[in-house]
Amino acid sequence: MKIKVIVTPKNGVLDPQGKAIQQTLNSMNFIDVSEVRQGKYFEIETDLKDEKDAKKNVEDMCKKLLANLVIEDYKIL
Amino acid sequence: MKIKVIVTPKNGVLDPQGKAIQQTLNSMNFIDVSEVRQGKYFEIETDLKDEKDAKKNVEDMCKKLLANLVIEDYKIL
Repeated sequence: MKIKVIVTPKNGVLDPQGKAIQQTLNSMNFIDVSEVRQGKYFEIETDLKDEKDAKKNVEDMCKKLLANLVIEDYKIL
Repeated sequence: MKIKVIVTPKNGVLDPQGKAIQQTLNSMNFIDVSEVRQGKYFEIETDLKDEKDAKKNVEDMCKKLLANLVIEDYKIL
Protein backbone atom coordinates (compact mmCIF):
# COMPACT_ATOMS: atom_id res chain seq x y z
CA MET A 1 0.00 0.00 0.00
CA LYS A 2 1.32 3.43 -0.93
CA ILE A 3 0.88 6.31 1.53
CA LYS A 4 1.58 9.90 0.44
CA VAL A 5 2.82 12.61 2.76
CA ILE A 6 3.41 16.33 2.31
CA VAL A 7 5.73 18.23 4.66
CA THR A 8 5.53 22.03 4.51
CA PRO A 9 7.20 24.88 6.42
CA LYS A 10 4.87 26.22 9.12
CA ASN A 11 3.20 29.58 8.57
CA GLY A 12 5.57 32.33 9.65
CA VAL A 13 8.69 30.24 9.12
CA LEU A 14 10.97 31.81 6.51
CA ASP A 15 11.29 29.83 3.29
CA PRO A 16 14.27 31.28 1.39
CA GLN A 17 14.11 28.58 -1.28
CA GLY A 18 10.47 29.41 -2.01
CA LYS A 19 11.33 33.11 -2.09
CA ALA A 20 14.11 32.47 -4.60
CA ILE A 21 11.72 30.50 -6.81
CA GLN A 22 9.15 33.30 -6.63
CA GLN A 23 11.73 35.91 -7.66
CA THR A 24 12.94 33.71 -10.50
CA LEU A 25 9.37 33.17 -11.73
CA ASN A 26 8.75 36.94 -11.58
CA SER A 27 11.90 37.57 -13.60
CA MET A 28 10.66 34.99 -16.16
CA ASN A 29 7.58 37.15 -16.74
CA PHE A 30 5.28 35.21 -14.41
CA ILE A 31 4.45 38.55 -12.76
CA ASP A 32 1.20 37.28 -11.20
CA VAL A 33 3.08 35.04 -8.72
CA SER A 34 3.02 36.72 -5.30
CA GLU A 35 4.35 33.92 -3.10
CA VAL A 36 5.88 30.44 -3.39
CA ARG A 37 6.32 28.02 -0.49
CA GLN A 38 8.30 24.85 -1.04
CA GLY A 39 7.81 21.63 0.87
CA LYS A 40 8.67 17.97 0.57
CA TYR A 41 6.61 15.09 -0.76
CA PHE A 42 7.05 11.42 0.15
CA GLU A 43 5.54 8.26 -1.29
CA ILE A 44 5.95 5.47 1.24
CA GLU A 45 5.37 1.90 0.13
CA THR A 46 4.47 -0.25 3.10
CA ASP A 47 3.72 -3.95 3.43
CA LEU A 48 0.85 -3.29 5.84
CA LYS A 49 -2.51 -4.22 4.32
CA ASP A 50 -4.81 -2.15 6.50
CA GLU A 51 -5.04 1.52 5.46
CA LYS A 52 -5.72 2.76 8.99
CA ASP A 53 -2.71 0.89 10.41
CA ALA A 54 -0.51 2.09 7.54
CA LYS A 55 -1.48 5.74 8.03
CA LYS A 56 -0.94 5.52 11.78
CA ASN A 57 2.48 4.05 11.12
CA VAL A 58 3.33 6.78 8.62
CA GLU A 59 2.23 9.42 11.14
CA ASP A 60 4.75 7.94 13.55
CA MET A 61 7.46 8.15 10.84
CA CYS A 62 6.59 11.83 10.27
CA LYS A 63 6.99 12.61 13.94
CA LYS A 64 10.24 10.68 14.30
CA LEU A 65 12.04 11.32 11.01
CA LEU A 66 10.28 12.94 8.06
CA ALA A 67 9.20 16.26 9.55
CA ASN A 68 10.84 18.67 11.97
CA LEU A 69 7.75 19.59 13.98
CA VAL A 70 9.36 22.76 15.33
CA ILE A 71 9.29 24.38 11.91
CA GLU A 72 7.28 22.00 9.70
CA ASP A 73 3.77 20.60 9.41
CA TYR A 74 2.94 17.27 7.81
CA LYS A 75 -0.18 16.11 6.06
CA ILE A 76 -0.94 12.48 5.21
CA LEU A 77 -2.97 12.33 2.00
CA MET B 1 -5.54 31.88 -5.52
CA LYS B 2 -3.24 29.12 -4.29
CA ILE B 3 -2.21 26.35 -6.69
CA LYS B 4 -0.44 23.23 -5.40
CA VAL B 5 2.06 21.20 -7.41
CA ILE B 6 3.86 17.94 -6.76
CA VAL B 7 7.06 17.09 -8.65
CA THR B 8 8.23 13.48 -8.42
CA PRO B 9 11.09 11.48 -9.95
CA LYS B 10 9.86 9.46 -12.95
CA ASN B 11 9.45 5.72 -12.58
CA GLY B 12 12.79 4.06 -13.16
CA VAL B 13 14.82 7.10 -12.21
CA LEU B 14 17.07 6.39 -9.23
CA ASP B 15 16.13 8.26 -6.08
CA PRO B 16 19.09 7.93 -3.68
CA GLN B 17 17.53 10.31 -1.16
CA GLY B 18 14.36 8.21 -0.99
CA LYS B 19 16.49 5.07 -0.66
CA ALA B 20 18.42 6.59 2.24
CA ILE B 21 15.15 7.50 3.97
CA GLN B 22 13.84 3.96 3.47
CA GLN B 23 16.98 2.43 4.97
CA THR B 24 16.85 4.83 7.91
CA LEU B 25 13.19 3.98 8.54
CA ASN B 26 14.00 0.25 8.40
CA SER B 27 16.80 0.76 10.91
CA MET B 28 14.34 2.61 13.17
CA ASN B 29 12.18 -0.52 13.30
CA PHE B 30 9.73 0.52 10.59
CA ILE B 31 10.44 -2.81 8.92
CA ASP B 32 7.25 -2.78 6.83
CA VAL B 33 8.57 0.05 4.62
CA SER B 34 9.66 -1.42 1.29
CA GLU B 35 10.22 1.74 -0.75
CA VAL B 36 10.32 5.52 -0.33
CA ARG B 37 10.31 8.02 -3.18
CA GLN B 38 10.89 11.68 -2.41
CA GLY B 39 9.58 14.56 -4.45
CA LYS B 40 8.99 18.28 -4.14
CA TYR B 41 5.85 20.17 -3.26
CA PHE B 42 5.08 23.78 -4.19
CA GLU B 43 2.31 26.12 -3.12
CA ILE B 44 2.10 28.95 -5.62
CA GLU B 45 0.09 32.03 -4.73
CA THR B 46 -1.04 33.80 -7.87
CA ASP B 47 -3.00 37.01 -8.42
CA LEU B 48 -5.00 35.41 -11.24
CA LYS B 49 -8.68 35.05 -10.32
CA ASP B 50 -9.68 32.34 -12.79
CA GLU B 51 -8.73 28.81 -11.69
CA LYS B 52 -8.37 27.52 -15.23
CA ASP B 53 -6.03 30.39 -16.20
CA ALA B 54 -4.04 29.96 -13.00
CA LYS B 55 -3.54 26.23 -13.52
CA LYS B 56 -2.55 26.74 -17.13
CA ASN B 57 -0.02 29.32 -15.98
CA VAL B 58 1.35 26.99 -13.30
CA GLU B 59 1.69 24.22 -15.87
CA ASP B 60 3.85 26.61 -17.89
CA MET B 61 5.99 27.27 -14.77
CA CYS B 62 6.42 23.53 -14.24
CA LYS B 63 7.67 23.05 -17.79
CA LYS B 64 10.02 26.05 -17.66
CA LEU B 65 11.37 25.99 -14.12
CA LEU B 66 9.85 23.76 -11.44
CA ALA B 67 10.31 20.32 -12.99
CA ASN B 68 13.08 18.73 -15.04
CA LEU B 69 10.90 16.82 -17.50
CA VAL B 70 13.73 14.48 -18.48
CA ILE B 71 13.70 12.86 -15.04
CA GLU B 72 10.65 14.28 -13.25
CA ASP B 73 6.87 14.31 -13.57
CA TYR B 74 4.65 17.07 -12.23
CA LYS B 75 1.07 16.96 -11.03
CA ILE B 76 -1.06 20.05 -10.43
CA LEU B 77 -3.51 19.36 -7.58
